[in-house]
Amino acid sequence: MTYCVALSMDCGLAFMSDTRTNAGVDSISTFKKMFSWTKPGERVIVLLAAGNLATTQSVVSLLDERAKAPHDRSPSLLETPSMYQTARVVGDLLKEVITGSAPAGQSQDAFGASFILGGQIRGTEPRLFMIYPEGNFVEAGADTPFFQIGEIKYGKPILVRAFDAGMSFAEAAKLLLVSFDSTVKSNLSVGLPLDMQFYERDSFALGKQIRVTADDAYYRRISDGWSDALKTAFRQLPDFPL
Amino acid sequence: MTYCVALSMDCGLAFMSDTRTNAGVDSISTFKKMFSWTKPGERVIVLLAAGNLATTQSVVSLLDERAKAPHDRSPSLLETPSMYQTARVVGDLLKEVITGSAPAGQSQDAFGASFILGGQIRGTEPRLFMIYPEGNFVEAGADTPFFQIGEIKYGKPILVRAFDAGMSFAEAAKLLLVSFDSTVKSNLSVGLPLDMQFYERDSFALGKQIRVTADDAYYRRISDGWSDALKTAFRQLPDFPL
Repeated sequence: MTYCVALSMDCGLAFMSDTRTNAGVDSISTFKKMFSWTKPGERVIVLLAAGNLATTQSVVSLLDERAKAPHDRSPSLLETPSMYQTARVVGDLLKEVITGSAPAGQSQDAFGASFILGGQIRGTEPRLFMIYPEGNFVEAGADTPFFQIGEIKYGKPILVRAFDAGMSFAEAAKLLLVSFDSTVKSNLSVGLPLDMQFYERDSFALGKQIRVTADDAYYRRISDGWSDALKTAFRQLPDFPL
Repeated sequence: MTYCVALSMDCGLAFMSDTRTNAGVDSISTFKKMFSWTKPGERVIVLLAAGNLATTQSVVSLLDERAKAPHDRSPSLLETPSMYQTARVVGDLLKEVITGSAPAGQSQDAFGASFILGGQIRGTEPRLFMIYPEGNFVEAGADTPFFQIGEIKYGKPILVRAFDAGMSFAEAAKLLLVSFDSTVKSNLSVGLPLDMQFYERDSFALGKQIRVTADDAYYRRISDGWSDALKTAFRQLPDFPL
């Protein structure tokens, strides 16, 4: 499995992904699942990937090739006129790779993958999309300002409760780490190191990229601190009146 | 879906289940998923059910019939010599019902169900089992002192962090409600009212049974209080040093 989250906030976009891939529990590897393309001063595009690793790597390799040598039929991510068109390019390519991987007439489920795509193109607002294996996609809005893909359930309760569109990047990083820590503590298929990427609205340049490892002092402080804070908060609630 | 949890503590056993069943999101009903059998002074047996409702209701009806009119080939839950043998009776029956429901040679997945079984028989310790659709089962121990079935992921992080075998029933009820509240807030397929059942070690009688509804004052206090407590705990953690 995998766990990826992207947040859409007033100050911009924040992305986080883990790096664990597994084919069963006895075949575990580390792969980066966060990719980005930029034309400084003009556009920034960030992609998070979950699902079949062969599928997602194929899509990213094809996107890379087309960004370097664009041709008419398949526009480059660096040339699309809008984030919507960028999502279409990624979605079409994803569907194409999945369809091409599955033997004719057989289920495509094993080759499935999904993406979170976010970024900004000059003249438009920052936008965030979730792209399905079928190639179609949905966009984040004020009511649903974040997307998760992969092993999403453990880390959702804290996002639902603590997300605030007015957060700073420092607060967003804290929220993402708490959400990931809850997941890592509950599920073997999500693992450190974690990759974090920020994009500041209207900067048209990639913001800070941070790799958080298991021995990172802040991560340890959040992980232990959150356990303690939960226990304290739990103790302070009134016991059931039996 | 469904969400059921049972905790094995020093003071005894605590059980909780939701009551929502669904066949798609447009066919939602309320059914109790908690069942019990007692021979006062001699044994108490509690069963929590998740999965295909036709399967779990069949198993419970058959267990009821056999408890009333036991016959040689299939021992009654009220006559088994140990909790282990009780788990075998339930497991064998579950496998039989599932196998009988699926058309010959076809997948049995759609008819699958699982149970948590807990209780105590005089002369033995309280024991807790999780029973799989295949009819086999595992027992809780000191390292894994609780079981969850159904929609287990949202409510697991708080159980992992706050469970303590030395808890009182009042604390256990609070923990269960927080775990259920996190699940209900994140997933439509788990819903109120909730059923709670306690069994005090060596009492050989069913303890308090409580039905928690959405307008229960304590539940509202826990639900709102936990949201506030999480937000406060989150704010008190240091922001990421960007």
